[in-house]
Amino acid sequence: MVVEQLEMHLSFQGEQRKYHHFSKVLNCDMVFSLYLPPSFEEKELSLIWWLSGLTCTDDNFSQKSGFQKAAADQTVAVIIPDTSPRGDKVPDDEGWDLGKGASFYLNATQDPWVENYQMYTYLTEELPQIVYSLIPHFSGKESIMGHSMGGHGAIMMGLKERDRFASISAFAPILNPSQVPWGQKAFTAYLGSDESSWQEWDSTSLIEQTEKVPPILITQGMSDNFYEVQLQEKEFLKAAGDKPVFYRSEKGYDHSYFTIATFIEEHIQFHVNELKK
Amino acid sequence: MVVEQLEMHLSFQGEQRKYHHFSKVLNCDMVFSLYLPPSFEEKELSLIWWLSGLTCTDDNFSQKSGFQKAAADQTVAVIIPDTSPRGDKVPDDEGWDLGKGASFYLNATQDPWVENYQMYTYLTEELPQIVYSLIPHFSGKESIMGHSMGGHGAIMMGLKERDRFASISAFAPILNPSQVPWGQKAFTAYLGSDESSWQEWDSTSLIEQTEKVPPILITQGMSDNFYEVQLQEKEFLKAAGDKPVFYRSEKGYDHSYFTIATFIEEHIQFHVNELKK
Repeated sequence: MVVEQLEMHLSFQGEQRKYHHFSKVLNCDMVFSLYLPPSFEEKELSLIWWLSGLTCTDDNFSQKSGFQKAAADQTVAVIIPDTSPRGDKVPDDEGWDLGKGASFYLNATQDPWVENYQMYTYLTEELPQIVYSLIPHFSGKESIMGHSMGGHGAIMMGLKERDRFASISAFAPILNPSQVPWGQKAFTAYLGSDESSWQEWDSTSLIEQTEKVPPILITQGMSDNFYEVQLQEKEFLKAAGDKPVFYRSEKGYDHSYFTIATFIEEHIQFHVNELKK
Repeated sequence: MVVEQLEMHLSFQGEQRKYHHFSKVLNCDMVFSLYLPPSFEEKELSLIWWLSGLTCTDDNFSQKSGFQKAAADQTVAVIIPDTSPRGDKVPDDEGWDLGKGASFYLNATQDPWVENYQMYTYLTEELPQIVYSLIPHFSGKESIMGHSMGGHGAIMMGLKERDRFASISAFAPILNPSQVPWGQKAFTAYLGSDESSWQEWDSTSLIEQTEKVPPILITQGMSDNFYEVQLQEKEFLKAAGDKPVFYRSEKGYDHSYFTIATFIEEHIQFHVNELKK
């Protein structure tokens, strides 16, 4: 397995790195970004995953959220995968909400997507082994967070792999993709029109079916243009019942990285509290 | 004078705004960004100017530096102008280091630049009046900072307008543009080949000629690819003599916004200390 370091920028005395590798699971070249906090050579580190939203790459979060300050203060590593398979040979769509940059972090079953769009397996089997090997002293403990489509990804993956993650958080997540336009378009393309096959990728279905869940923190801006149509929380919170979901409505905040930058320290602190237990 | 608000994003409980206006000085449409900290309606605010580097717009600093946290904590307003005149009618060059995105913040005297490239007058006469009017309770106190070409702009402008600015700071500034390739190319185009006309725009000449200067903080990454050729500090520090210049070499840091994000809190604190005097 060849993993090539493409970039390294010192950031808050830690290292913001970018890597390239060939993914067997996705059958294409991929990049990802990894932040290692100050003195990472000497310290045991836990790992937080960040999954980005529609149209993003690994760069948006590393360049626009300012997360490095909190990760440096809390001495935690952060891995930022890309949002889909990439390259000229990978199928795509004219819309920005399907195909490249819009994998929805699931395993596709339908043509032409099935050959490359296996992001769930990539993120749960192939990429973790690579990332663990890049952290000199990995604690074995992980948490997961994300934004919008990546908020869906973080909660869905966190619920499906609930023994793996100490905590889950999301900004403006697509909580019930099978019931909203973004999710319905993507699930129809990737999974086919039989809606019963969609449920294993829908956080609202998953949390209803899951007995014990890690604590989940959700931040939703109330001036987010996508809130009413795409990001409704009612069914998710109903399905969650008395499971540990902390849902925070933030007045005046929108769907942008300005919101993420404002609250990322709080999310990282939330994860670190759980990772230390 | 018509100033139109294009965007507003809540950020650390303050407002990150973007505006559009027609500039008479530059003879074109311009945008700029303005951050107003929490409770700006009720508080007296000082103002810090940020001038960006080559190829940037007003978005780079507002999206990538994370400055809003420190500006919110310190209750200070921050104005981010664009880096040059803009629009289809404005002359440009094939190179990214001349023309649009590369004004060097001076007043051009040569064709075809002379008609639009009057950034110094724009930033010292026209734009200030607009910005002051957007701050409900302006203290009348200002500081200035910038990066690379904008570091040159901040120090040059701060020295030329030394009664106006309480303090000056820069990341990786072009301190002696008349002696380095970026500056020589731009000054030849904008000012002509008579090098005596360059000196009034060169911070090294200016600091030598200026009796009393505001305190100047400079942060220079030692892994900055442009350091050796474009950003040499020796002549500037020699010319500064015992004037209050605080030059900080930061080992391992590069020319990117990761460096700016790491040290922006320190720069804003430096300015606020002077603005409070």
